[in-house]
Amino acid sequence: MIQKIDHLGIAVKSLDESILYYEKSLGLKCEHVEEVESQKVRTAFFDVGGTHIELLEPTSPESPIAKFLEKNGEGIHHIAFKTDDITGQLKQASDSGVKLIHETPFEGAGDKLVAFLHPKSTHGVLTEFCACKA
Amino acid sequence: MIQKIDHLGIAVKSLDESILYYEKSLGLKCEHVEEVESQKVRTAFFDVGGTHIELLEPTSPESPIAKFLEKNGEGIHHIAFKTDDITGQLKQASDSGVKLIHETPFEGAGDKLVAFLHPKSTHGVLTEFCACKA
Repeated sequence: MIQKIDHLGIAVKSLDESILYYEKSLGLKCEHVEEVESQKVRTAFFDVGGTHIELLEPTSPESPIAKFLEKNGEGIHHIAFKTDDITGQLKQASDSGVKLIHETPFEGAGDKLVAFLHPKSTHGVLTEFCACKA
Repeated sequence: MIQKIDHLGIAVKSLDESILYYEKSLGLKCEHVEEVESQKVRTAFFDVGGTHIELLEPTSPESPIAKFLEKNGEGIHHIAFKTDDITGQLKQASDSGVKLIHETPFEGAGDKLVAFLHPKSTHGVLTEFCACKA
C-alpha cells in the first residue's frame, strides 16, 4: 500500500543557488547534502512536513539529470511514493499494463529499496516506489 | 511558515483515464471530482498520507492547463505549500527577489487563499502558497 509521498525530486543546474532559493525565499532548511556516485548527482534534502524535497544537480554530462536538464530545463523530475510492499506495488502496476523501468527493486540513496515506473505509462510523471529495507 | 506540501497539481488530458491509472495501477482512491469554472478545469483529488494529488483536465482550449499540455504534454504542473501566513510568505519571497504571479492572495478551490510564484524565479517549479481562510 502507498503510505505517503516520500519525496519530490527536482532537477537543478546549481545546488548552491537552489538551496539559497529554498532557504531564503521559502524559509525551508536544508537538512543535508549528499553525493550519489551511482546516479552521478549531488543532492540536497529539505523536510517539508514529512515529505522531502530532493534537489538533484548533475555531477557529469552522463548523469540522467544532465540529460533531463538539457531537454526540459530545471523543474520537477520525479515523484516517489513510500510503500510497505514494493514488490506487490510493482506487480500491481505491471498487471494493470504499466511499463516498469525496473522489474526488481534496487538499493537507492538512504539505504532504501527503489524502483521506477516509465513516464510513458504514468501520464507523464516519472514515478518511483521506495521502501525501507526489511 | 511553510507547514507541509498541500498538494501537487498534475496536468492530464483525460481525467477519467488518469483516475483509472491512479486507482488501478497505484491503488490510490479518488476522493472527489470538482469543476473549477474560473480556471477552466475539472479536478480529481487523491489523499496520499496528508498531501493531495490534484489531477487537472482542461475544460476549454483557453484553460492554462490546455496551454501547458500543448507545450509540455502531461506531467507535474505545480507544487503547493501550505502556510499559516500567506502574506508574510509572499513578502519573504518578493524581498529575496522572487517574481510573484499574484501580489495578493485570491480565493482558490476548497475555500482557500492562494497565490503563485513565477517559475522563472523558482528554478523551474511553478510554486503555489495556500492557506486556510482566517
